[in-house]
Amino acid sequence: MYNEIMLKDGERYDDLQFRNLKLIQKEGGYTFTSDAVLIANHVRAYRGERVVDLGTGSGVIAILVAAKTPCKEVVGIEIQPRLADMASRSVEVNGLSDRVKILNCDMKDAPELLGRESFDVVVSNPPYMIAEGESDDEVEICKREFKITLREVIRTATKLLKYGGNLYMILKSERLTDLISFMRLEGVEPKRLIPVQPTIKKDIDTVIVEGKKAGKPGLVMEKPLIVFDENGEYTLDAKRLYDL
Amino acid sequence: MYNEIMLKDGERYDDLQFRNLKLIQKEGGYTFTSDAVLIANHVRAYRGERVVDLGTGSGVIAILVAAKTPCKEVVGIEIQPRLADMASRSVEVNGLSDRVKILNCDMKDAPELLGRESFDVVVSNPPYMIAEGESDDEVEICKREFKITLREVIRTATKLLKYGGNLYMILKSERLTDLISFMRLEGVEPKRLIPVQPTIKKDIDTVIVEGKKAGKPGLVMEKPLIVFDENGEYTLDAKRLYDL
Repeated sequence: MYNEIMLKDGERYDDLQFRNLKLIQKEGGYTFTSDAVLIANHVRAYRGERVVDLGTGSGVIAILVAAKTPCKEVVGIEIQPRLADMASRSVEVNGLSDRVKILNCDMKDAPELLGRESFDVVVSNPPYMIAEGESDDEVEICKREFKITLREVIRTATKLLKYGGNLYMILKSERLTDLISFMRLEGVEPKRLIPVQPTIKKDIDTVIVEGKKAGKPGLVMEKPLIVFDENGEYTLDAKRLYDL
Repeated sequence: MYNEIMLKDGERYDDLQFRNLKLIQKEGGYTFTSDAVLIANHVRAYRGERVVDLGTGSGVIAILVAAKTPCKEVVGIEIQPRLADMASRSVEVNGLSDRVKILNCDMKDAPELLGRESFDVVVSNPPYMIAEGESDDEVEICKREFKITLREVIRTATKLLKYGGNLYMILKSERLTDLISFMRLEGVEPKRLIPVQPTIKKDIDTVIVEGKKAGKPGLVMEKPLIVFDENGEYTLDAKRLYDL
């Protein structure tokens, strides 16, 4: 199903631990985190629906959503050419080229390129830290707002979403005020929030927020997802969500 | 310390379970909830500081904050005359008249009456449900936004707060987006959020949010306060917070 010819210098195949899916990643480059798996596993997309992943990086979310939902199509948008190229090869390796497209562009251009209000679902694991100055570093660009701010990601999502479509985002809880204020200001009403706690004794460090374009106010705040138990083992809830 | 003469028709003394504090309440009228005790126990106020409780009702938060912190003064503002009168008598009964004042007015007039930017701390357990039409019912006015909206409460708080002063609010988590969006829009930045879960298996239903006037963005989302254990008994955390 896949072969070494797909790999470029310094790259390797990593196991996505779901139906033998593989992901090409480069040592020393940006590698996906558990947050990507977590948000991918929260996306609900139905038969015939179109999904877009803003800032897809190595393509992990796009590939998982295509594998786990019956959606028609997933478009992964990535501004960094090396990552977009790597993501495209991962799509091919997994035999998902008919349903997953990787687009190497600035996501701010996506509404014009792909069509406004043409997606049922938008998902994003965006840069989560404020940026100062400029950077050309691949990892820094994934983590910090050098190329795009959180508000711009949300604005882009709103433009791409159909009326009533859903936006799924995961972010550090430190930025919760930014996340839910910007969603409302841009016209996507927060409807569901899942706090993520590393252990039951620790503070919440991550939030998953689902919003609906033109939705009515009213948020369901679910019980937290606790990742590890007292012995440092994954909890049953975490195993279920990470498909372990 | 107190006597029956203080009581009017249908009223009774309830025990606040802290240093023999009593509260006058009326059967069939609005009676305080655990949320009031919870928010009162989260307020940090220091020697010499001035505190105002917006929508004090029976005065429970004002009395508890005066008893539990070394603050100089607490002003409780209540628009409903019967409740304000009852709260005044509770203050007197508890011997707190030198530090707690109850003011019967519309809180929107409070910045002019009490002075803008004259308080170190504002606390409020505001009406938490949207209102439709009008109502004269005492309980409904406490629970629903007939006399004032959430946004107006927060705007009033901002006017009353000194630069850098703290706002403490408790609300149903359903309205979290309103709460933290309005705080930011009115100039009080959310700094700390404590989710409240009835039990570990249930969704979060209540949030405590602390904001700082002119504060920098950045929220600490604490681990949830779980109120009851699997046997329906108060958890140790809840006992500590409710002073049980």
